[in-house]
Amino acid sequence: MNAEIYKLSELIDRDLAEDNLSEQEKDELEKKIKPLLSENSIVLAQTNPICGNLKYNAQKAKKWIDWANRLGVKAIIFPEAFLMGIPFGDYLIKFPHIVEDCREWLEILAEYTTNTKVIMGFVEKNNSKIGKPYYNSVAILEHGHIENIVRKTLLPTYSELNDDRYFESVPIDGKNRITLINNKKAGVIICEDGWNDSEFFSRNLYKNDPVETVVNEQHPDFLINCSASITRAKKEQLKHNMLSFASKKHETPILYVNQVGSSDCVSYEGASRVYGKDGNLIYRAKAFEEQFFIVDPFERKGKIYSLPDGLEKTLNSQKAFSLDYEPDLERTYKTIIQSIRDYFSKIGFKHACLGLSGGLDSTVCAVLLADALGKENVFGVSMPSKITSSESKNDAKILAENLGINYIEVPIKEIFDATRETFDGMFSQIENRWDFRYKQSYTNDNIQARARANILWGISNEFDKCLAIATSDKSEAYMGYATINGDMSGGFAPISDVTKTKLFALAKWLNKNRDVKNVIPQSIIEKRPGAELAINPKTGKPLLAEEALMPYEFLDEVIWRVENLHQAINDMLEVQFLYEKDNVLSKEQKQEWLEKFFRRMSCALYKWSIMPPAPIVDAHSINKAEYSQPIISSGIDYRKTSTKYKKQVLNG
Amino acid sequence: MNAEIYKLSELIDRDLAEDNLSEQEKDELEKKIKPLLSENSIVLAQTNPICGNLKYNAQKAKKWIDWANRLGVKAIIFPEAFLMGIPFGDYLIKFPHIVEDCREWLEILAEYTTNTKVIMGFVEKNNSKIGKPYYNSVAILEHGHIENIVRKTLLPTYSELNDDRYFESVPIDGKNRITLINNKKAGVIICEDGWNDSEFFSRNLYKNDPVETVVNEQHPDFLINCSASITRAKKEQLKHNMLSFASKKHETPILYVNQVGSSDCVSYEGASRVYGKDGNLIYRAKAFEEQFFIVDPFERKGKIYSLPDGLEKTLNSQKAFSLDYEPDLERTYKTIIQSIRDYFSKIGFKHACLGLSGGLDSTVCAVLLADALGKENVFGVSMPSKITSSESKNDAKILAENLGINYIEVPIKEIFDATRETFDGMFSQIENRWDFRYKQSYTNDNIQARARANILWGISNEFDKCLAIATSDKSEAYMGYATINGDMSGGFAPISDVTKTKLFALAKWLNKNRDVKNVIPQSIIEKRPGAELAINPKTGKPLLAEEALMPYEFLDEVIWRVENLHQAINDMLEVQFLYEKDNVLSKEQKQEWLEKFFRRMSCALYKWSIMPPAPIVDAHSINKAEYSQPIISSGIDYRKTSTKYKKQVLNG
Repeated sequence: MNAEIYKLSELIDRDLAEDNLSEQEKDELEKKIKPLLSENSIVLAQTNPICGNLKYNAQKAKKWIDWANRLGVKAIIFPEAFLMGIPFGDYLIKFPHIVEDCREWLEILAEYTTNTKVIMGFVEKNNSKIGKPYYNSVAILEHGHIENIVRKTLLPTYSELNDDRYFESVPIDGKNRITLINNKKAGVIICEDGWNDSEFFSRNLYKNDPVETVVNEQHPDFLINCSASITRAKKEQLKHNMLSFASKKHETPILYVNQVGSSDCVSYEGASRVYGKDGNLIYRAKAFEEQFFIVDPFERKGKIYSLPDGLEKTLNSQKAFSLDYEPDLERTYKTIIQSIRDYFSKIGFKHACLGLSGGLDSTVCAVLLADALGKENVFGVSMPSKITSSESKNDAKILAENLGINYIEVPIKEIFDATRETFDGMFSQIENRWDFRYKQSYTNDNIQARARANILWGISNEFDKCLAIATSDKSEAYMGYATINGDMSGGFAPISDVTKTKLFALAKWLNKNRDVKNVIPQSIIEKRPGAELAINPKTGKPLLAEEALMPYEFLDEVIWRVENLHQAINDMLEVQFLYEKDNVLSKEQKQEWLEKFFRRMSCALYKWSIMPPAPIVDAHSINKAEYSQPIISSGIDYRKTSTKYKKQVLNG
Repeated sequence: MNAEIYKLSELIDRDLAEDNLSEQEKDELEKKIKPLLSENSIVLAQTNPICGNLKYNAQKAKKWIDWANRLGVKAIIFPEAFLMGIPFGDYLIKFPHIVEDCREWLEILAEYTTNTKVIMGFVEKNNSKIGKPYYNSVAILEHGHIENIVRKTLLPTYSELNDDRYFESVPIDGKNRITLINNKKAGVIICEDGWNDSEFFSRNLYKNDPVETVVNEQHPDFLINCSASITRAKKEQLKHNMLSFASKKHETPILYVNQVGSSDCVSYEGASRVYGKDGNLIYRAKAFEEQFFIVDPFERKGKIYSLPDGLEKTLNSQKAFSLDYEPDLERTYKTIIQSIRDYFSKIGFKHACLGLSGGLDSTVCAVLLADALGKENVFGVSMPSKITSSESKNDAKILAENLGINYIEVPIKEIFDATRETFDGMFSQIENRWDFRYKQSYTNDNIQARARANILWGISNEFDKCLAIATSDKSEAYMGYATINGDMSGGFAPISDVTKTKLFALAKWLNKNRDVKNVIPQSIIEKRPGAELAINPKTGKPLLAEEALMPYEFLDEVIWRVENLHQAINDMLEVQFLYEKDNVLSKEQKQEWLEKFFRRMSCALYKWSIMPPAPIVDAHSINKAEYSQPIISSGIDYRKTSTKYKKQVLNG
């Protein structure tokens, strides 16, 4: 395609987003674009639906179809399940009338179709008396009616995906997957259907490969894959390699259309693309934006929009733990920004308030919120107690000034004192009945954390469309190092899937890469993290997090090994940690830290169950949308015990 | 079986629970029981495992196997996946070493087997390069080794069940399912394998029926079903009918072994049983207790322990909404009691503190906690504000005295005043930057609710093994009528799956059926519910919940219709509600309430996502363990709109 077409189609993107063109302006734009179109022009409709909001999705589809009709392209292709919006959740089960509604919206949309084919994912009722209640389907609309329906065969049920919960799998039928587009045979594949090549993967989840069946039986001229595939660390290279492998192996171009946008905890990056029959990438749409992307599967060279760092560079980093997070930081940033923006806008919130402690977590959150929502929509609240250092207060204030967000200082002394006084009287009375009062407790720490959360929720209660933000990070979530109803509480938790060592890297990256440089004071990046909730009796200074837990570099490697390599304690004792390269670490100390990790993790399971919604960013997370573990599973033995030990246990 | 055997085997149950018998006493008991055993005696090991705690489960298995060996019964049968414990959660994926551990524990247990067969569910690794990582398997152990392994075919993936997430389905192989027990052919079925009879169900989830295949191919003398099937309202009659139907249809006795005990949110009721080949129930174990249950599938008459009300009477109540909850109250009570007890004991908590408002919710919670944990382990805290009536304070105190739980009164005035003062200063400063302060807000209501939660969490922080309890009910959860970090916060939420009208019935039932009668003051049962957080300007009295929401009788029927009939607004407008029989209700008012219901429900989705763990009691619930809906799905149209409306939307 001519480069000119992409400049012009950006005007369509803008019109689709803002309805900013008059009929006359549309006519003029149409006249400019049409001569540039090639014979087999097809639009990849890289769209951001709202799950369950059929009216919104249908209205969006109508506008996109109108533009495709106007240009007279041969087809416009929407992502998997577009009309319903992914992820579904159980509303499909609880409110089945919306599946009927979905069908009706589809039929009405079909009435607007011409000889431009519309290929669109939707959710379809299974009318048979056997099987799951629905199909995950793609409809082919043309000349005012539904021409054909293709149903998904491979139903992913892992991580954030739950297809088998709702959908009946349909055996692959090559013929039914074929539709003619400008007399070329197109084979339609739905997301996971394209992810089971037995030569590409060393392990396969399913027995058959729908791509192979369609190609071998029908010899299509090209393949279309309608997808809704989320962004994760280390996934893009895999996706690229797989699609490239398949198009080359089958000598068939592949058009891959992906959803964009975020929905609760999951984020889709878009980056729809086309591979030629030689396996070369020939087109790629933008990442993290809607795009009306015009392609021709038979052209040798097309526009390849560049990906943010991290969408392309991270496959190698899978092999070992590293503190070099640089390759994934731009993707991390864009994922979280999109996630905040869509969560707020899709629910109807506009403003955010958060505590600014002068520490790393709240600092990074403030920058991300300002970039996602606009600095005028963010209120940073410094809530010092008597333990808060003047440096922390100062750092928080400078950060807010640098960022240009709203800022206020609200000391918690009065609430703390009143609570402490009430508690003192209460505890001494309870002690008369219950003789198991702790000698040392975290009560004072928690009063402070909870007073702060109450202040933020108070602002949320008092000001329109304002959400309180939780600033916990992933390292702390694993350790349960956050207070219930305190800092782990909020309407959204932007960084709860980012570990502490990665946050340090992200802070430096933000200082270097944002339009306004160095908004984060250097002192925040340099100081060692601490909650400033208690004094360390050994040092007489506020307790540092690493004193209470273990060095973050070590902790984050344990998390990495658990999530990526699924290692037990004994596996980890046998390998050298990055931390051990620069530090002397006795085997006893290492074992103590590892046991502490799993002990604390077991006690944190309840906290995981009540964590606020948060963007999934990492390759694996403990976000409820993809991971759950029974709270009572605290008896799991994380050591990988020997046969001898087990025999001793049973012999008594 | 002789009635005497059940008296004697209760001594075995006690020994298994408490290790209270010496070797000599065991020998004597053995001598008494052995002569009473019939030729085909088999033990149904109705056990309560701890999920993931392999050491605990293996030690338990060993003790039960020892007793079976000692008596020389022909077999002892454990529930589905017993050795791992159900529900698994994702630790199977994250910590695969425990699946290897599970296999090793199984092999060591096999070493203790004699000519008494042991049939035991466990989780098995799938060593093939294709398919899901595990099998849901049952091992048959004998003479010191593993004789055979049977793998589950039908993998339920709905409600609380997620088998397809972890397990590979194995095509049914009749021959492999057969094991000889005393030269009789037994066919082994695993839970869902037995739930797909095409004659019994009007709709089938799967294409084949493993029971039919095993029977037709192998003609077994009896069938064994190893299960882990949770208790729910209205389920027992279905289960009974289905098992009776299958045994009669196939003219084959069925031994059904079910797990007992609770795990996080799900509860298993046990009530293992045997059906004769004529479809008659001939044995049934106790409900909600572990039991070493001796049966003979070829005897015509056996011991049938009675079920609690509600396990047997509730199928009919499925057909229409009713305020007659009586048939389900004993089951509800026993489910919640077991759930509290197991949650506390399996995690390691002993004590509970809760707010006592003098209202229905906290009152019922206090009774349930006292019964589950012992009255000395419960602290009721009255936390009056200036809105709290003297009646409420008095009612709370009388309840605590009647129950014999610990009691304290802790006014929240000081915390409230300090918070309000801090808020006043803060809000006026924020207003200078943000001009969207609400004219009226819920801030004062929430300060009170949060002050109370902080007090309870303070007690939890200060006293050993003490958990704060959330007292929200199901009607309020649907309406989002609970405060974040306030009354909806806690380590466990005993009644969050019980609607308000059912709670009234439960309160009356408790007064009538507990050993100590009438502990709940009549005034608590008679007064209309209200949070006592705000004054109704119209009445000058504390705002009643029904004034803020809608009548509970109406609200609870909407919930019932949504959960059981999946109705949309327009469906509900067309039918007469129970409330309408005794009250005049205009169509406009009805529509307004229905729209309010769905509007409030949409706003409550976030709150559902952070609700504490809680017992699933009802036929359907919004508990995270079985239900999830994206928070951003607030755009769902709950009306079931017309074609005309949809066309207008797209044309306009």
